[in-house]
Amino acid sequence: MKSYNVAVVGATGAVGQTMIKILQERNFPVKRILPLASARSNGHSVEFRGEKIKVEEAVPSAFDGIDIALFSAGNEVSKELAPEAVKRGAVVIDNSSAFRMDPDVPLVVPEVNPGDIHRHKGLIANPNCSTIQMVVVLKPIHEKARIKRVVVSTYQAVSGTGVDAIEELKLQSGKILNGDMPEPRVYPYPIAFNVLPHIDVFDDTGYSMEEWKMVRETKKIMGDESIAVTATTVRVPVFNCHSEAVNIETVEKLTADGARSILSKAPGVKVVDDPKNRIYPLPAAVSGENDVYVGRIREDFSIDCGLNLWIVADNLRKGAAYNAVQIAEYMVQHSLV
Amino acid sequence: MKSYNVAVVGATGAVGQTMIKILQERNFPVKRILPLASARSNGHSVEFRGEKIKVEEAVPSAFDGIDIALFSAGNEVSKELAPEAVKRGAVVIDNSSAFRMDPDVPLVVPEVNPGDIHRHKGLIANPNCSTIQMVVVLKPIHEKARIKRVVVSTYQAVSGTGVDAIEELKLQSGKILNGDMPEPRVYPYPIAFNVLPHIDVFDDTGYSMEEWKMVRETKKIMGDESIAVTATTVRVPVFNCHSEAVNIETVEKLTADGARSILSKAPGVKVVDDPKNRIYPLPAAVSGENDVYVGRIREDFSIDCGLNLWIVADNLRKGAAYNAVQIAEYMVQHSLV
Repeated sequence: MKSYNVAVVGATGAVGQTMIKILQERNFPVKRILPLASARSNGHSVEFRGEKIKVEEAVPSAFDGIDIALFSAGNEVSKELAPEAVKRGAVVIDNSSAFRMDPDVPLVVPEVNPGDIHRHKGLIANPNCSTIQMVVVLKPIHEKARIKRVVVSTYQAVSGTGVDAIEELKLQSGKILNGDMPEPRVYPYPIAFNVLPHIDVFDDTGYSMEEWKMVRETKKIMGDESIAVTATTVRVPVFNCHSEAVNIETVEKLTADGARSILSKAPGVKVVDDPKNRIYPLPAAVSGENDVYVGRIREDFSIDCGLNLWIVADNLRKGAAYNAVQIAEYMVQHSLV
Repeated sequence: MKSYNVAVVGATGAVGQTMIKILQERNFPVKRILPLASARSNGHSVEFRGEKIKVEEAVPSAFDGIDIALFSAGNEVSKELAPEAVKRGAVVIDNSSAFRMDPDVPLVVPEVNPGDIHRHKGLIANPNCSTIQMVVVLKPIHEKARIKRVVVSTYQAVSGTGVDAIEELKLQSGKILNGDMPEPRVYPYPIAFNVLPHIDVFDDTGYSMEEWKMVRETKKIMGDESIAVTATTVRVPVFNCHSEAVNIETVEKLTADGARSILSKAPGVKVVDDPKNRIYPLPAAVSGENDVYVGRIREDFSIDCGLNLWIVADNLRKGAAYNAVQIAEYMVQHSLV
């Protein structure tokens, strides 16, 4: 079987580390793994298949001979280095938001729009974490009942911000439990025992970029500009896994049982829905899983054709690293790399 | 000035303690305060105006000579003792859900429907915490633009469950920080570093009673059965103050500036809304405040006439104790007691 030289850019970050772990878990045909990061990570190493591998500096020449480059080191690094990697013959799967809305760049969730991978020109964008887990659930509902409008409120974990934020939540929680007032560093206010309706930066409309990502990326991934989305994105003191309360209005009527039946057959979806017996998706329980979990499936009685859903996924896995590796797997299966 | 004998039933609970604190803060004309609780609280005492006052057992005869009885000891206690208190001549302001939907019982938020207090027959119901803070904001918007539909997702603090839940969040957080797995007691799963889409019990529709309260109580308080509401209520690891992401569809168009202008003049509302400068309501900051805080005021571009709001209030104060004391103050001002 053919195997590939795979670079992971941002290898010491929360997503980068998870990418390397998932490449190993899934037995991805790696010939050579090349962990890359900024010069700050000099001297670091990562483990892959029992071997310690030195992290190298992410510079253009590092991509010589690389077949697949998984990027998760922020927009600036992607803007600078992704074209360099492509120029050197690599296919880039980019987890930053730098290229997502570029019409020449496919924005892919393999359960939703795998076909878009075929029209890549060297670069494929991995969508925003909170968008990925939502569209995996929206897609089968859209196919059956056509979605007109989505109102989503998120409950997002600190791991989405990175390893510093995970440390900050730990540190602040301990301080507050001891009666101290912590000084925030990563977030503008303490996140411990608090919720912050602020993810990414705000524009003049009062929306945050995270909210706009959910609006715009959903339309692009679903391939349907008619799907109206509005979002409120909120950080909660959870280490890992994003949760979402999603309200959907459809054209065709779908009962809760109908939705449950469709979703239980949908790829990448696990239905966990028996609230009377205390069965519903929880972020603490979904951490480490690759699937998207959905429960609290209810008819919305405030309109004729409405549904309420509660969607939880591991934002580092399905929301980032696993989705990127799935794209790479698809390319391997279809000889696109 | 006339003064009153005031009983507080559930005086050792989170809401009861806050009721006593607020009666003092607001210089409510108390002649005598009578803290009542179950026999379990035997030997406890509360402080009022610098005096330690023994908590007595809540039995029917305790209400002899009482003018105003504030109840917050759960549905069963209210069902049993509120009629006894009324029979003995007290006016009962009941924070339980036992009588809220009774057509003979006014369900009152003083900023919204103070007039309903006048038709009381001895008993006035204090609404659900998450409903109170929402309707204070909905009311002025409804008057201006007529609300058709509300989609709300909540981020509710553990203080709403009671003092045991506050202790559980502390204890569990410490254990998890130390690498231990806590055993849940108050909630079915650990609440520390987790979110639970489960508040109160579920019925066959898949909705929780907390969600139905937001649907039904909103219509009753607003005096308009045509307002459609759907809700997803979620517990978050926050000690105090509920937050809500509220999406509103109106009949008349209201811009974000228009809504901001209306809300900045609304009674009991504080507008805190400058996200670019990191100004938005936060539960950790609103704790201890009596007003309802609103920010993240945005047009919802997914429909013609829509708004998104972020509403935060102290659930022990405006969501419970303060609202009850406001009702009592109104009765005193209007010689209804």
